[in-house]
Amino acid sequence: MTGPRYTQLVASLPATVPFVGPETQERTRNRPFAARLGANENLFGPSPKAVEAMAKAARDIWMYGDPENHDLRHALAAHHRVELENIVVGEGIDGLLGYLVRMLVGPGDAVVTSEGAYPTFNFHVAGFGGTLHKVPYRGDHEDPEALIARARDTRAKLIYLANPDNPMGSWHNAETISRMIAAIPDGTLLALDEAYVELAPEGTAPAIDADDPRVIRMRTFSKGYGMAGARVGYAIGEAGLITAFNKIRNHFGMCRISQAGALAALQDQPHLADIRAKVAAAWDEIGRIASANGLVALPSATNFVTVDCGRDGSFARLVLAELTARDIFVRMPFVAPHDRCIRVSCGRPEDLARFAEALPEALAAARG
Amino acid sequence: MTGPRYTQLVASLPATVPFVGPETQERTRNRPFAARLGANENLFGPSPKAVEAMAKAARDIWMYGDPENHDLRHALAAHHRVELENIVVGEGIDGLLGYLVRMLVGPGDAVVTSEGAYPTFNFHVAGFGGTLHKVPYRGDHEDPEALIARARDTRAKLIYLANPDNPMGSWHNAETISRMIAAIPDGTLLALDEAYVELAPEGTAPAIDADDPRVIRMRTFSKGYGMAGARVGYAIGEAGLITAFNKIRNHFGMCRISQAGALAALQDQPHLADIRAKVAAAWDEIGRIASANGLVALPSATNFVTVDCGRDGSFARLVLAELTARDIFVRMPFVAPHDRCIRVSCGRPEDLARFAEALPEALAAARG
Repeated sequence: MTGPRYTQLVASLPATVPFVGPETQERTRNRPFAARLGANENLFGPSPKAVEAMAKAARDIWMYGDPENHDLRHALAAHHRVELENIVVGEGIDGLLGYLVRMLVGPGDAVVTSEGAYPTFNFHVAGFGGTLHKVPYRGDHEDPEALIARARDTRAKLIYLANPDNPMGSWHNAETISRMIAAIPDGTLLALDEAYVELAPEGTAPAIDADDPRVIRMRTFSKGYGMAGARVGYAIGEAGLITAFNKIRNHFGMCRISQAGALAALQDQPHLADIRAKVAAAWDEIGRIASANGLVALPSATNFVTVDCGRDGSFARLVLAELTARDIFVRMPFVAPHDRCIRVSCGRPEDLARFAEALPEALAAARG
Repeated sequence: MTGPRYTQLVASLPATVPFVGPETQERTRNRPFAARLGANENLFGPSPKAVEAMAKAARDIWMYGDPENHDLRHALAAHHRVELENIVVGEGIDGLLGYLVRMLVGPGDAVVTSEGAYPTFNFHVAGFGGTLHKVPYRGDHEDPEALIARARDTRAKLIYLANPDNPMGSWHNAETISRMIAAIPDGTLLALDEAYVELAPEGTAPAIDADDPRVIRMRTFSKGYGMAGARVGYAIGEAGLITAFNKIRNHFGMCRISQAGALAALQDQPHLADIRAKVAAAWDEIGRIASANGLVALPSATNFVTVDCGRDGSFARLVLAELTARDIFVRMPFVAPHDRCIRVSCGRPEDLARFAEALPEALAAARG
């Protein structure tokens, strides 16, 4: 009586988790957090119209969701002025990145990303046996030229770039990204993760050319729209590439309630404008709190602010541990030199007040 | 400027869809269905407590769901008297089957299923390059002995069996399944899809031995619990196998609202008992309607009844088309000889009344 025979690849993989959730930490600590500021969530929440649409859809949950995500894709196509065939909806950008990697990357295929960029992308590349090539950031920014150069050198099938960036909150303007797209080597696809772009300054996202086969844009309802728990991401790309997702995706993978909520959220653009204003106010407030404690808040185009703790990674890890001990959930970048920072979500005034109260004590204890 | 380079495997796949959704048909017809009886959904709906829990959770949708699905897994472990480590939650059984196939099946690996069984499983096997070996049903039942024999002959890594069965509604008792498990060849895993088992007679499911490395049990909130749109499936198996899902699954793939709804649904077992009674009444009513029209309803242990239209597949396809023309959504088995049948969900009295009204006309037109 033996166990199952895994593929060689899967047998070789570690059982890693890209991120430990706050609930896991709360169970370990046996105490809830007082401020949930570590998961890049949008504490201002979704449109009330989306909440209403979801509550209504809950009563119809006996029905499968539309596997074509037609109504949502139709609305997204109109919103972005592209065709229905240019849009695929999936279980968050995480889910779509998994499908995309599966479509392109087999054992030994080269993939390029930045050292310290989104771990879940790396998780998928490893999961399909790809070879990851990582280029360093240039200061606190991802480095488009270095990514392109490495892709050329390695004949990469896929490049990953997040604009705005996670975990640094930095961003490039549309011209820089357009130059990058123009330089993509033949046979390489750019996965341009624009999860945070609704919160970025005007001029951050290049105009969408949905027929460009060199780039696939990833968007989500998790950040600006405040619906992380709904798991609704979408990708915009050339129709052939988008159709290819149908070869492998979990066609009935989308929650019906989430479909309804995302549609209502998209239709409430005034709420998104309100969120933008609240996030901007939180940027300022986190900046003020950082300054008051002798720290430097980095400029942000996202719903979090990366705060430079001014020393090395060991010190920032101590600060984070002391904040955790004071019931403040934050996270930090994984690799040096960015691990000198902690990353704080754009919370409501009451959340940031708790952070402001805990930070001086945490710093004192860490310095102690 | 070229397009992306797909893997050889993905390039070779067709862009198939395992099932065309009723919404797609409604868009094509440009007319809604009057009775939605084709997707094996539970028209009696979920527990009102689940609906309430989901409406409440909608307000918290700005938070990601717990990637460990801890509370739901904890409740499921208690319900099934297994350990937390024996349970993985995923995006429906469809999602879990995809992960399972990915873990075990690479190009050319042998997999055994029944001719005419669940197409979504076949979709996943093809999607990872596995070689499907299909054995015929024995009458209207899947054939455990033939599945085992073929697995032995082909050194299969994986066997798929649904008990109760879709699309025939038939079932084996626990003793038959236990004998099958005892006969599983070394190094083969049985994926025992028990999606419908909450609706089956007592004695259909063998006792769960979660430490048995030869079998993984698949369960869902889509059928008995009436929450198909929520996409919550789970698997029960040996801890090593269950942990291996963490190597590849979309850790943040579950909708937070669905997690809350499933937990509340599980805790409302009286509602499930009520559903069982309503489904049993619908079995009888569909049987009565079939008889009244000179057709034979096959015995069912599921939330649908497979109705033998008495001639060949061409005739049944005509009946189905005529029902569709009369706004009744039903489906039918894909392969002969089962395609002599149509498959009707256990609707509410008003749904079945519409079916009863349309069927004589549809039959007359088909006999035409």
